[in-house]
Amino acid sequence: MAPNILFIMYDQLRFDYLSCAGHPTLETPSFDRVAARGVRFDRAYCQSPVCGASRMSTYTGRYVSSHGAAHNNFPLKVGEMTMGDHLRKAGMECWLIGKTHMKADAEGMARLGLSPDSVIGARVEECGFDVWIRDDGLWAEGPDGFYDRKRSPYNEYLKAKGYPSENPWHDNANAGITGAGDIASGFLMMHADKPANIREEDSETPWLTSRTIDFIEAQKGKGPWCAHVSFIKPHWPYIVPAPYHDMYGVDDIVPVVRSDAERRDPHPVYGAYMEGGVGTAFSRDEVRRTVIPAYMGLIKQCDDQLGRLLDYLDDTGQADDTVIVLTSDHGDYLGDHWMGEKDMFHDPSARVPLIISDPRPSADSRRGTVCDKLVEQIDLAATFVEMAGGEVPRHILEGRSLVPLLEGKDTAWRNFAISEYDFSTSGAASRLGLAPKDCRLFMVVTDRWKMTHAEGGFRPMLFDLQNDPDELVDLGASGDHAEVISALYDKLFHWARRQSHRTTISDAQIEARRKGGSARVGILLGLFGDEDIPPDYLTAYSGKATSVDQT
Amino acid sequence: MAPNILFIMYDQLRFDYLSCAGHPTLETPSFDRVAARGVRFDRAYCQSPVCGASRMSTYTGRYVSSHGAAHNNFPLKVGEMTMGDHLRKAGMECWLIGKTHMKADAEGMARLGLSPDSVIGARVEECGFDVWIRDDGLWAEGPDGFYDRKRSPYNEYLKAKGYPSENPWHDNANAGITGAGDIASGFLMMHADKPANIREEDSETPWLTSRTIDFIEAQKGKGPWCAHVSFIKPHWPYIVPAPYHDMYGVDDIVPVVRSDAERRDPHPVYGAYMEGGVGTAFSRDEVRRTVIPAYMGLIKQCDDQLGRLLDYLDDTGQADDTVIVLTSDHGDYLGDHWMGEKDMFHDPSARVPLIISDPRPSADSRRGTVCDKLVEQIDLAATFVEMAGGEVPRHILEGRSLVPLLEGKDTAWRNFAISEYDFSTSGAASRLGLAPKDCRLFMVVTDRWKMTHAEGGFRPMLFDLQNDPDELVDLGASGDHAEVISALYDKLFHWARRQSHRTTISDAQIEARRKGGSARVGILLGLFGDEDIPPDYLTAYSGKATSVDQT
Repeated sequence: MAPNILFIMYDQLRFDYLSCAGHPTLETPSFDRVAARGVRFDRAYCQSPVCGASRMSTYTGRYVSSHGAAHNNFPLKVGEMTMGDHLRKAGMECWLIGKTHMKADAEGMARLGLSPDSVIGARVEECGFDVWIRDDGLWAEGPDGFYDRKRSPYNEYLKAKGYPSENPWHDNANAGITGAGDIASGFLMMHADKPANIREEDSETPWLTSRTIDFIEAQKGKGPWCAHVSFIKPHWPYIVPAPYHDMYGVDDIVPVVRSDAERRDPHPVYGAYMEGGVGTAFSRDEVRRTVIPAYMGLIKQCDDQLGRLLDYLDDTGQADDTVIVLTSDHGDYLGDHWMGEKDMFHDPSARVPLIISDPRPSADSRRGTVCDKLVEQIDLAATFVEMAGGEVPRHILEGRSLVPLLEGKDTAWRNFAISEYDFSTSGAASRLGLAPKDCRLFMVVTDRWKMTHAEGGFRPMLFDLQNDPDELVDLGASGDHAEVISALYDKLFHWARRQSHRTTISDAQIEARRKGGSARVGILLGLFGDEDIPPDYLTAYSGKATSVDQT
Repeated sequence: MAPNILFIMYDQLRFDYLSCAGHPTLETPSFDRVAARGVRFDRAYCQSPVCGASRMSTYTGRYVSSHGAAHNNFPLKVGEMTMGDHLRKAGMECWLIGKTHMKADAEGMARLGLSPDSVIGARVEECGFDVWIRDDGLWAEGPDGFYDRKRSPYNEYLKAKGYPSENPWHDNANAGITGAGDIASGFLMMHADKPANIREEDSETPWLTSRTIDFIEAQKGKGPWCAHVSFIKPHWPYIVPAPYHDMYGVDDIVPVVRSDAERRDPHPVYGAYMEGGVGTAFSRDEVRRTVIPAYMGLIKQCDDQLGRLLDYLDDTGQADDTVIVLTSDHGDYLGDHWMGEKDMFHDPSARVPLIISDPRPSADSRRGTVCDKLVEQIDLAATFVEMAGGEVPRHILEGRSLVPLLEGKDTAWRNFAISEYDFSTSGAASRLGLAPKDCRLFMVVTDRWKMTHAEGGFRPMLFDLQNDPDELVDLGASGDHAEVISALYDKLFHWARRQSHRTTISDAQIEARRKGGSARVGILLGLFGDEDIPPDYLTAYSGKATSVDQT
């Protein structure tokens, strides 16, 4: 029988903010415990450094250019299959507990008559998952109303627990209290050092962990399942309840990675991002000093809650039946490279943590190891289908199953990875005056090089990861690197020509058709005389004619 | 009010087998009559030189790589929109009369619960058309049964008219009688010189013309419509009823275009096609001498029936309300370049006739003219949407409206066109031993050059259309043309990176979001202190806090 798959995603968790990944001051024993039981993939990249696009790639197993949902709230078009569709076909249920950032293609659903109230329509609307809990954790409100207009199970939970606010997600989970007794919104980063005004057990990460345990309890005696447990944290607002709010201080912050040279004549798109409000803010030491300890506290809380979940699985004897996957949708610059948030392809943004422990004996040989192969988040869907015992539909899924790497099998692997970014809705696009079609970035990364191609007539960016692992020296305009750049463009060109939409017929079906498929149903081409035709093909076309009177 | 659109497609009609396109012995006064009323596009290319893929591009308005139905009977995936969907949105009905070669995505339809018996399901199954008549005209039968397992309205018609055969499509419309009184199947090209054993008025082209007149009669008093009238002829089987069967003789055949040099060290894919049964057959003079007069007779019959339809429109006063579009899905090598049928990109195969007459005064200035701009068949869907008065959804339709060209407006136009071919199911693929993913060809054509890129590690093919309009000298291995080839590859690369799947959000919607869309719903990024926040954004996040007891 297939194992269960606990597919846990943290939002905006940097690849290097785990002790098993080398963070010097942030201890994450629970993440490390999973890494000790499994494989840590040290060179994993998301397919787009922004929540929505990254997740749609992970869930569909396809590149952003293939599924088209290239930014937050760009709807995923009706017809795109997701890991839920593939896993159900393989006999495994696929549930959602938490966030997806899925925006349904309402117009496409209406065109095809799909009602969100039907089982099929609900799955299309929810990115192929069956919903245990859907809560994207972004209950922001502005002059035009709420960012997310669905219901919030988390806000309902807090209200039921007696929190009196209309929006306790904001006023309690994501705000502290000022000295004057006012709400100290986590949206203002100056408040990141305050404790959130909430009981720690009621904050978002413990709440979703409890819902996950509820889910697993409810599955007892049922068939194998995949559960996508998707935490909003350590994503902003950067604020965390006590005791995590002051667990880390300024001395725990790792040095910022940036250089003055980066600001001299930068690539225009990078320059436009540095000039934006987020980049400017995170370039201030005051912001980093206030935010990073809170960010570390949020991760520490995630680690503690992960420990709770691991203990639960161990204590109930389910650890041996459950694959655990820990990852993120993208990272967080935190001031590195004069940037905040994500949006470009430096490692703090585009590289993601990925740890997989597979309890089955077949994976014993690689436990506790680190894999440095270039892994893409789209590999997860194929991995899960293989774990479920299904046949990986390689004409649909563009990623590759990681199972051979988990089992230490010798396998030819990709020599470059791709990530994409569509910044057409951004302030940077406005500042550059670019048409939407020109607001697209493509990253090509190999063992040694990382190149970013930008549409719109710009030069590329290039980093030598061997000699400049911090990505501080942009060689994109270097004449000495013309050959390297050309070779990376060849890889991008090869990738751009990939066959990504012949999704309704498999290679096996195609190869079967080579065996004279259409001739066997009477399509006889290139035949001149009777002698050209095999006897058994003539049946339908021979016999006495009945002459027709043509007058 | 929008005009009606009579969108007529002939199957496998070569671009140069019309007198208005310069054929010296085949007079086509009805085609010429439409050309005199409108514009003949002299450099139109299909998006794939094979029925199914070409048509799916024409109907979806998208490149083959985008819709994925890359060969005959590769299902068009659920979710792809077609001209029917776009035209209905613009208030115009869109009907089918004849052939589409549409293969429905039955698995996708089942996954989304779409029944072919519902209005929505029927449209999805029929490529977005409402069906007046669907008959693909390929009622071939072999040891494994029929090629097409639907019902054949045409066979039903013939049976109702008293034709006694079980398959009168074959035995009468597409067969003659041997001297011994046996059925002389049109699938054997030796019989192409015989008259088909059918009354001319009952043969396929007059039959579908009558159904078209029925359709137009039934629309009287109704709103504007688009009718896709789609004839199977002059497609094989190459056989035509009297008097067309002997209207042309050997002396009417234009000289074959081929050279011995083409067979010396050809491009491997081209070589594999030349070696195949079809290429070998059409390289025999006997085959050309027998088939080409029949092919010309089939076109002559198409022309006569077109005249009948034009007369009907003129006589009933509908010509002034009806745009007429005449085109084909691809050509026919007929022995040129040692090839038969289609499959590669020499002009006889990939270039198509295209004539459009728009009766509205806005098109008066260009009547009777020839346009030499590079046109793609995917331009038709955008053209029709504009004619219907709709807004062209440029984030979905990859072609461009031809209306400015019909109206003689100065407009920047593309400087290269693309066609693609997937030969993964072919005998050539078997002979070359290629994996399906490597069986893909891409044509890039400019004013002067035509290059074919082949996956699988082969060199390109290159023709200089200025100095070698017959495409007899392949310069793909010429060192002197390295720069030309490199520039053409740059165009292909640019095309391959096109944004083809961000189909759920338009450029206008994206540009609207640049105006602080997410901040207006409370997503405030990069703010540190109170002074950073505009006053009206604070409403939801301010006020007195209610302190939570955290013990």
